[in-house]
Parts: sequence; structure tokens; C-alpha cells
Amino acid sequence: MNYYGDPITRLIEKFASLPGIGRKSAQRLAFHVIGMSEQEVKELTDAIISAKRDVKYCSVCCNLTDSDICPVCASPKRDHKTIMVVENPRDMAAYEKTKEYNGVYHVLHGAISPMAGVTPSDIKLKELLERIQKDTPDEIILATNPNVEGEATAMYISKLIKPLGIKVTRIANGVPVGGDLEYVDQVTLTRALEGRREL
Amino acid sequence: MNYYGDPITRLIEKFASLPGIGRKSAQRLAFHVIGMSEQEVKELTDAIISAKRDVKYCSVCCNLTDSDICPVCASPKRDHKTIMVVENPRDMAAYEKTKEYNGVYHVLHGAISPMAGVTPSDIKLKELLERIQKDTPDEIILATNPNVEGEATAMYISKLIKPLGIKVTRIANGVPVGGDLEYVDQVTLTRALEGRREL
Repeated sequence: MNYYGDPITRLIEKFASLPGIGRKSAQRLAFHVIGMSEQEVKELTDAIISAKRDVKYCSVCCNLTDSDICPVCASPKRDHKTIMVVENPRDMAAYEKTKEYNGVYHVLHGAISPMAGVTPSDIKLKELLERIQKDTPDEIILATNPNVEGEATAMYISKLIKPLGIKVTRIANGVPVGGDLEYVDQVTLTRALEGRREL
Repeated sequence: MNYYGDPITRLIEKFASLPGIGRKSAQRLAFHVIGMSEQEVKELTDAIISAKRDVKYCSVCCNLTDSDICPVCASPKRDHKTIMVVENPRDMAAYEKTKEYNGVYHVLHGAISPMAGVTPSDIKLKELLERIQKDTPDEIILATNPNVEGEATAMYISKLIKPLGIKVTRIANGVPVGGDLEYVDQVTLTRALEGRREL
């Protein structure tokens, strides 16, 4: 039954259709919105509309940006000869937060996954190859996720690029810092052992 | 640093300011919105705007509704001489879902809480008293939450209404159905014992 009237029910349904928001959270959000001031509601909807309208792909690295070229690609301080390939903008932001990487990025917007029907043509791979031929980078760092799809994507890209004579690397697998060996899975432990370095 | 550009960062901040949505979820939602179709984004923002614009208080019970009188108050099938007092519309919906209650409601939109600075004049108590004097109900069922604020609010209302000669009741405390005695707190167990009924 419709306990609240159409506008609230419709808003609850809209919120519930967003990822990670269940029925109860959607209800809570809807009632929160009704309790917000007109001004706050306008700011929220404007932010949604503007994000959808003004955000596009960076013409160099395919990161999401509101300018033609994203701040990283536009920066003269970055090393444009090193390109880190990531699956999505969140992964890029994660590496940016480390403040340890000074190269540029290429955002694939996905990973190859035959199970989910994602083929190499569905991700920004063509753009990467065109960019490599134009910019001739020194190194391509493959930082796709350490799962089946990410590994497959890294393998696929490495086979395409290596013949061009460009150095291709993959970020290391190993035990996470601050983790507890007891709770780390066996594959990771094996990789950490294989990747051991002399001190 | 601003990793994504202003429109996305602003949307992430807006989402993160909503209740129960953390930084990571807000990021996920923002990227989801960017991936939605123009039509879906429009439906979402329209739903938010319409909920804020069209929803007001029912002039009888203070429930949120898009008509002047909410469906429950407008229904001739309901027993308008029994009023259940609840803290908010979600609590009302919870009782509606039981399909066992045929009376009407009064929504307080809060509970008295000196700690949070919520006084009796901040909730819809004046409206309840005016309604009682106009409609002379047979029974007022206090269904505020079984916590400190809810109990205090119930006590406060009962002291106001009892002198008017109207029957005032409080929903029962006890062990929840399907629960496990082992995990029920001691106060609830005591209340369940006190409220025991002959079979």
C-alpha cells in the first residue's frame, strides 16, 4: 500500500534504485530531503544535474573531468612519459592520494570480462593504443585490479603493447601493509613470497 | 586535492552530507549518476523536487501527504475515535503494514528530548490537544518509541490527556516475536515478565 502519498513513494523508489541503498535507507533519505530547506534541495538537484551535464572524458587519458583535459594531463610538472593504466577514476584517485606517483594515467572505464559480456572494445583500449603511438611513453604501468578480470585485462594489454618495444610493468601483489598474515589468503601469501626483495 | 573536477566533487559532497551515506558510498553514487541516462537523471531530480514541493502535513493528523488530508484520515472505513500517537511517518507505516490497526494516527514528528533541545512545543503536540478537544476520541494509544525520549514523551502526553477523562494506553513492552531470550536485554525481560498474561 502507498502509506505516504505518491511524491514520497516515488522518491523512495528512485533512491532505492541507486547502488548500495536499500529500502530502509531510501526511506530515511526521502524523509531527510523533505526536511531539508528549499535552498539545500536546490543545491542537491543542481549538483546532480551539473555533474551529469558538465562531466566528460578527458581527451587524453579518458578520466572524468569538467574541462577538456583533466588537471593531471594538463600539469607540466607530471612525467608524461609514464602512463599508469587503471580501471576507473576511483582507482586513479586512490593512487593520487598516495602522492607518490608523478606520472600520468589512462582510465579504461572497466575491465575485460567475458562473463559479464565486457569485450576489449567496450573499454578505452583503442584510445590507449592511439595515445601510445602518438606519445611514445617510456613505461606503461598496469594497475588494474588484482582480481580475475583485472589480471586478464593486464595480460591482454601487455600482449598488445610489448611488441611495440615499450616497457610494461604490473603493480606488485603482496601482503597489505598493516594486515595480519593469519588472515591473508594463500594466493596473496604465495605472491608475496615470490616477490620477496633483499633488504 | 580535487581529483575529479568540481562538478563531481560537489556532487560527492552533497551525497556525503545525506544521512547514512559515507564518503565512499557518496563517490559510488556520484559515478553512478554520471553513468545514468539523461532521462534517469531527470526522473531522479524531478522526484526530489516534487517530494519537497508537493508534500505537506495532513491537516488532521500531521502525517506527510500530498493531499490536504492523508488517505488514512480521509478513509470512512477507519475508526476515527481511536488515535495512535507515533513519532514519525515511518512508525505509522510500520503499524499500517501489520494491517491489524483500524484506527487513525497522530504524527508528532519527534519526541521530547531535553538533551537534544527538543521541547514539547517543537513537536506536533498542540495539534494533538486541539484535535482531542474537537474530536473527543475514545482512546489515545501512545506508540512512541520504547527508548528514553519516547517513554518521556508518552508520560508527558498521558499526564496532559488523562485529566480530560480520555482512555490513554501504551503499547506493550516484551520479548520480540522470533527473538531469542538469551539475547534479549534485562529491562525487556523484566517488562515481559511484568506484562505476562494468562493463557
